[in-house]
Amino acid sequence: MLGHGATLALGALRGLRGGAPPARSLGLSRRAGRVTLRLLSFEKVFDKDHSLPKPCWSKDMRLLFDQFMKKCEDGSWILLPSYEYISTQRSQDFSPFIRAYFPTASELINKEKLSQAQLFTRSFEDGLGFEYGMFYNEAEKRIVCVFQEGPHLQGMPGFFHGGATATMIDSTVGMNAIVSGGIVMTANLNINFKRPIPLCSVLINSQLDKMEGRKLFVSCNVQSVDEKILYTEATSLFIMLDAKKKFDIKELLLNSPPA
Amino acid sequence: MLGHGATLALGALRGLRGGAPPARSLGLSRRAGRVTLRLLSFEKVFDKDHSLPKPCWSKDMRLLFDQFMKKCEDGSWILLPSYEYISTQRSQDFSPFIRAYFPTASELINKEKLSQAQLFTRSFEDGLGFEYGMFYNEAEKRIVCVFQEGPHLQGMPGFFHGGATATMIDSTVGMNAIVSGGIVMTANLNINFKRPIPLCSVLINSQLDKMEGRKLFVSCNVQSVDEKILYTEATSLFIMLDAKKKFDIKELLLNSPPA
Repeated sequence: MLGHGATLALGALRGLRGGAPPARSLGLSRRAGRVTLRLLSFEKVFDKDHSLPKPCWSKDMRLLFDQFMKKCEDGSWILLPSYEYISTQRSQDFSPFIRAYFPTASELINKEKLSQAQLFTRSFEDGLGFEYGMFYNEAEKRIVCVFQEGPHLQGMPGFFHGGATATMIDSTVGMNAIVSGGIVMTANLNINFKRPIPLCSVLINSQLDKMEGRKLFVSCNVQSVDEKILYTEATSLFIMLDAKKKFDIKELLLNSPPA
Repeated sequence: MLGHGATLALGALRGLRGGAPPARSLGLSRRAGRVTLRLLSFEKVFDKDHSLPKPCWSKDMRLLFDQFMKKCEDGSWILLPSYEYISTQRSQDFSPFIRAYFPTASELINKEKLSQAQLFTRSFEDGLGFEYGMFYNEAEKRIVCVFQEGPHLQGMPGFFHGGATATMIDSTVGMNAIVSGGIVMTANLNINFKRPIPLCSVLINSQLDKMEGRKLFVSCNVQSVDEKILYTEATSLFIMLDAKKKFDIKELLLNSPPA
């Protein structure tokens, strides 16, 4: 599949792009199931981890979050951090892959825009857009995303925009592929919309179904917080770009020494 | 398929939700292929049609827009207007369908959030998010979306977030389904990512492929402005909710008398 690079997209890295920075610019510590990132060499100061509770979170969102934080206590689940900006260093980490799979891309990128760039899912004011936290269970190959939909994500009046649903699905399955396969590209995303999603909080459950060579198959569903209403189901296919040059986020997050 | 309402989502209306308001709250006029909306009974004043050129548009975006405006001169194409807010009246138009297909939805909708609600694709400051204009060709059953990606839509550094790609695909194929079938729900969206999309301007081509009873099949692709690079391909399935109770947007837009 790697030779078929032109048929792939690097979209799967988006979740991580706003998440944990790479090894050489990080110090990691762990307390009560919570992975804490100490930033060492970034150009910007990242003092805000968006995966942590905010005043704008609803009661439902906070209850869901607390429920999974409880599961983190025995180490079976961990909360993945999430930041807004991307370091110059991390941009450089992607360059070899971009050049390899899309040689003309750099000519098309608008340099002026890059200085203003923000991760899509973290580019809204608190409470207006995507509010979420992702929890990872290594043994079960699962990522659960607790997610509150802000009012600027509206499609049909009172309901969530289908594209915003696709965005959070994409982010969740993408993160699952990254922690399982390192640097990956999204090849396919297939979404079945079952019911319209009201502007409230939901739970996104993703599962790594199988790995075949460089292919990773990840499925997910979007449910109400009580898991009684199934809103959406999706399958996805990711391609590992270089099995040898993984970011190895899993190891970074899971095996870091306690502070 | 209508009996299978629980398996559908109302997502397809999103494009229109930010676009043309319904017949009874509109006056329509037409000049040189441009449909102009005169707003009569809205609670908010919508003085900004986001489909019209702005200073933040790039040279590429402006060239693409002008190219399609030229095609509007003989009446074969029209530019579809696009607004930011949704009127109370329009919200009420959706209520019967929401109650029919999702009886418990109203209990889940956060009323406080509704007062702040904005259409997802129009909720960014000028130039930072989605900048686009959609052109409709009735004879060919096509909608072309000229689209500039703002820096707050970033996924991988320098590239467009996969979820943002999905959002604009969803909006474009959704609008095609609406002008062809009236009130519709998205049932499926299947996206094949071919190459990562740099933060620049692109062209989205959508085509109504066939209608079978209440089903509408719409496909699309995302290409570079010179149409030499194919970034993404997608197929979609929409379900007409009530063939008799169409908004009949097509007639409104196309057959309105000249001012």
